[in-house]
Amino acid sequence: MSSSYSSSDRPLILICNDDGIDAPGIQSLATALDGYGELCVVAPEQEQSAVGHAITVRDPVRAHSYEFDVPSGPICAWAVTGTPADCIKLATHQLLDRQPDLVVSGINRGPNTAVNILYSGTVSAATEAAILGFDAVAVSLCSFTLDEYEVAGRYAEKIVEQVLDEGLPPGVLLNVNVPAKPMDEVKGIRVTRQARSRWEESFEARVDPFDRPYYWISGKFVNLDDGDETDLQAIENDYVSVTPIQFDLTAYNHLDAIRGWRWNGR
Amino acid sequence: MSSSYSSSDRPLILICNDDGIDAPGIQSLATALDGYGELCVVAPEQEQSAVGHAITVRDPVRAHSYEFDVPSGPICAWAVTGTPADCIKLATHQLLDRQPDLVVSGINRGPNTAVNILYSGTVSAATEAAILGFDAVAVSLCSFTLDEYEVAGRYAEKIVEQVLDEGLPPGVLLNVNVPAKPMDEVKGIRVTRQARSRWEESFEARVDPFDRPYYWISGKFVNLDDGDETDLQAIENDYVSVTPIQFDLTAYNHLDAIRGWRWNGR
Repeated sequence: MSSSYSSSDRPLILICNDDGIDAPGIQSLATALDGYGELCVVAPEQEQSAVGHAITVRDPVRAHSYEFDVPSGPICAWAVTGTPADCIKLATHQLLDRQPDLVVSGINRGPNTAVNILYSGTVSAATEAAILGFDAVAVSLCSFTLDEYEVAGRYAEKIVEQVLDEGLPPGVLLNVNVPAKPMDEVKGIRVTRQARSRWEESFEARVDPFDRPYYWISGKFVNLDDGDETDLQAIENDYVSVTPIQFDLTAYNHLDAIRGWRWNGR
Repeated sequence: MSSSYSSSDRPLILICNDDGIDAPGIQSLATALDGYGELCVVAPEQEQSAVGHAITVRDPVRAHSYEFDVPSGPICAWAVTGTPADCIKLATHQLLDRQPDLVVSGINRGPNTAVNILYSGTVSAATEAAILGFDAVAVSLCSFTLDEYEVAGRYAEKIVEQVLDEGLPPGVLLNVNVPAKPMDEVKGIRVTRQARSRWEESFEARVDPFDRPYYWISGKFVNLDDGDETDLQAIENDYVSVTPIQFDLTAYNHLDAIRGWRWNGR
């Protein structure tokens, strides 16, 4: 879809995240993409981690304009009261003057590898963009503690450059994860698949001052995949993982077997 | 996984939804499944439509026991303050005495066909169950206005019977949609794929009494798929659609092409 703007126009890049519009990751992303086109940030007013593909249907959403600076100067920005998927819908239908050429979401605080893709608001913003027909990339840094997004920003830049050049197939977005390492220790980019994994959760039961129980979720992430070319394997080996993902959830490999069950005529 | 209980034990069926524990659809589902095993309902205290695969990580969740009756008598039930995915995690890690043999989510008010699968809390409850390794089925009635879930309950029963007999492949769940028709007009069951579609949204801008703008999402659902064997086609032709779905989002068909981009060595 990169051909939809002529060489005299600058591509419009819409930037979103799930950590909130004042998170350091989205600032680093916008800074890294400064110069690649016209930028507009439309992101949640507050942190929206782990909201998945939630959208706001029972309440209205609000948007207010926001001050957002990149090295070349101030850019268009809106803070939205809804989820990341809401941001993309509201931006493309209401807030932007023209349709974006590319949507980039991130840089997320923490990895969105393996099954975490399903829980991630950052990935869901990019998925919503792909559903609406736009090229889209989600970028995450594989650390919850490191507040240094420069390396991830450099890789976001490389990958955005490629996507603007090549264009993505319809319905496909790129899910990028960057190891929390200095630039000279990152070995390059690998195109990967989503590893099989799950969270082994436990709930910590506590009692409030009024003697009522409540539960905090906690858990241990478990890699169930010892195969090659997974996103987790790339990160463990200090590569940036680029996983092309899509949103047709049909289990095509199992259609025939399940068609063979005794469904009708009983 | 249906072999995990011996013939002398009754299977434990965990029931969830996203419309809330007092919605008529979950009552009809539990009533339909009465007799198929030991039932336990763990469902959101309040409506959680369109929350997708959101989980609650920044706040604790609470659960309180709930009165829930089926024709054979009262059953185990818990109302949870979180999302449908939270319910499955909390039920299987904290609330249930043993692991469920099957998780059934629904009966949802409104279709969860095509791209709506991604926004659905009802489907996400079943997806979370599949991630955790349990057989799982989501059931939806294709009407937002008909408050009559008996036909959908009858089909839920048929499909649960099959799943208890056959067991599902690991990582695969069934997404079932039932047309809003009388029993004798439903023509049977079709095993389908997720149709390509999208919402053509518009936002209705309003101004509150304090002169601040806000937006309501609204939109028109558009079927982009004129191929055969889709969930939408089945419903249009008065069939129940059964779509096997999975949660590996990797776009396998595009891996090779994207591997061919100029990623490294620049």
